[in-house]
Amino acid sequence: MKRIAIQGIAGSFHDIAAHQYFEGEQVQTLCCATFEEVFERIANDPTVIGMVAIENTIAGSLLHNYELLRASGTTIVGEHKLHIQHSICCLSDDDWTTISEVYSHPVALMQCREFLSRHPDLKAVEAEDTAGAAEYISRNRRRGCAAICNSSAARLYGMKVLEDQIEDNKHNFTRFLVVCSPHKADFLRAEEATNKSSLVFSLPHEEGSLSKILTILSFYNINLTKIQSLPVIGHEWEYLFYVDVTFTDLIRYHQSIDAIIPLTKKLKILGEYRDGKQSKD
Amino acid sequence: MKRIAIQGIAGSFHDIAAHQYFEGEQVQTLCCATFEEVFERIANDPTVIGMVAIENTIAGSLLHNYELLRASGTTIVGEHKLHIQHSICCLSDDDWTTISEVYSHPVALMQCREFLSRHPDLKAVEAEDTAGAAEYISRNRRRGCAAICNSSAARLYGMKVLEDQIEDNKHNFTRFLVVCSPHKADFLRAEEATNKSSLVFSLPHEEGSLSKILTILSFYNINLTKIQSLPVIGHEWEYLFYVDVTFTDLIRYHQSIDAIIPLTKKLKILGEYRDGKQSKD
Repeated sequence: MKRIAIQGIAGSFHDIAAHQYFEGEQVQTLCCATFEEVFERIANDPTVIGMVAIENTIAGSLLHNYELLRASGTTIVGEHKLHIQHSICCLSDDDWTTISEVYSHPVALMQCREFLSRHPDLKAVEAEDTAGAAEYISRNRRRGCAAICNSSAARLYGMKVLEDQIEDNKHNFTRFLVVCSPHKADFLRAEEATNKSSLVFSLPHEEGSLSKILTILSFYNINLTKIQSLPVIGHEWEYLFYVDVTFTDLIRYHQSIDAIIPLTKKLKILGEYRDGKQSKD
Repeated sequence: MKRIAIQGIAGSFHDIAAHQYFEGEQVQTLCCATFEEVFERIANDPTVIGMVAIENTIAGSLLHNYELLRASGTTIVGEHKLHIQHSICCLSDDDWTTISEVYSHPVALMQCREFLSRHPDLKAVEAEDTAGAAEYISRNRRRGCAAICNSSAARLYGMKVLEDQIEDNKHNFTRFLVVCSPHKADFLRAEEATNKSSLVFSLPHEEGSLSKILTILSFYNINLTKIQSLPVIGHEWEYLFYVDVTFTDLIRYHQSIDAIIPLTKKLKILGEYRDGKQSKD
C-alpha cells in the first residue's frame, strides 16, 4: 500500500495523477490543504510519498513549489504529465438557466476565461480546489452554484456535467513530481532506468557563467530539457537556475555533475529519476 | 500627450506603472478589458503605446503575454519594475465585523493567501481587476464586501482602508514592458541609452544547442539576465527560449546577434531598450 500526500481532495488533479502514476498498485491518498502540508507530512513520516504539481504548459512553473522542494530535503523519484481538462457541473436539479455562480481554483478559472466570457452572467468565485468546489456544492446542496473541475470529480460527487472540455487551450498539460524522503528513494526508483535529473544552482552575475556550465554539460552529452532563471530575492546580483537534464549514460551524468560543481554555488540535485510519459485520456 | 493602453482601469497596477514610467509627462491611459485588447489598440492606432506586465517575482512569467508580444509585431521600448503592495478596503460604513466577501484579481488573492487564511470567514471572490473590485463595490455601494487592491486605488474610489501591506511576501515586484508599433519606437527610446534586449528563438532538441548560443554571447561580452525555456506546443522536440541580455557596447551586441542567427531558428528581437530601475514606494 502506497500512501501519497496530495494537495487537494479525492477527485483533484493531484489525486488523478497519483493513481495514474502508481497504476496497478494499492494507493491511499492523504489529502492536504496546502503544498506546505504535503512536505510536512513527508518530513514527519518518511514512508509517505508526495505528488506535487511543478509546471503547467499554460500557467508556467509553480515557483513556490520549486522553493518548497529545494528547502524540504525531499528528493524527486519520478514525474507524471497529466492532460488537464475541465468540465462545468452542478446539482442535478440545476441547469444552465438556474446557475448564477461558478466555483473553482483560480488557475482553473483562468484556464476557462473564454468560456466564462461567453457566460457573463456567471459570477466566478474562488475555491481552494477544483474538486473541492464540486464537493462543497454537492455536500451543501448549493442550488444555483456550478463548479469547474475534471469530469471524474464531478462524477465522484454526484454532480451533473453541463459541458465538458471547457478549457480555452486543449494542449494543457501539468507535470507532477513524485517526491519522498531520500531514505526511501531507492525503493521507489530503478537506478538502471534513471535518465533524467533536476538541478538547482546559483551563479554569479557574470558574463558567460551560465554558458560555461551548459558547455560542460554538452561535452558530457547531457541534454537540457528545461531551464529557468530566477533572481535571488534580496541578492539582486545573483541568480538561481532550475535545470532539467536527460542522459543515456548514468556514469557520464555523474561525471558531468562533478565537473560543474566547482563553477557553481550551492548546487543541489533535486532528484534523479526516469522521465515520465504523457497521460492518455 | 502620451496615450497608454493598459489592461485594467484607473488605479490598477498597470495605471500606476504607466504614470511612474512617464513621470512628468502628460499621460492618458486607455483602459482595456484584456491584454489582447491592448495589442489590438496598438495595431489599430500606431500612436498608442502599451504597458504590459511580463513577470512577477512570485508568480513568475506571464507566458501568455510573451506569446501575445511575439505574435503582435510590436516592439519593446522600455521596462518598469513596480513594487506590488496590497491593501484591503471597504465602504466607509463597513468594518472588520461587517464584511463577509473579498473581491480581487485571482493573482492578488493568491499573493494574500496567508492573510486570507487568517480570516477564514471572508469568502474570496474573483474579479477581473484589483482596482476594478474597489470601483465595483464603491459604485454599487456593496455593503459587506471588501476589495484587495493597492492603496491608491482604494483612495481613488473613496474606499476605507482596513489594513495595508497584506501581501504574504514583501519582496513582490512586477516587471512591465512598454511596447509600441515599430514605426514609433525611435521616438520613444534614446538609442545611445540602449543597454538591454529581449530575444526569442527556437532551437532543435539537440545536446549543446543552447550552450553554443550562450557561449557566443559571452564571447561578445553580452550578459544574460533572464532565460526561460518553453516547449513548443504541438512540436514536442522543439523549444522556444526567451532570453533577456544586457550589454555596454551596442555594436558588439549587434555583432553577437549576427553571430547567433545562423544557429537559431525564428530568432526575433522583441525589443532593444534601456533597463528599468525599481520603483520607489
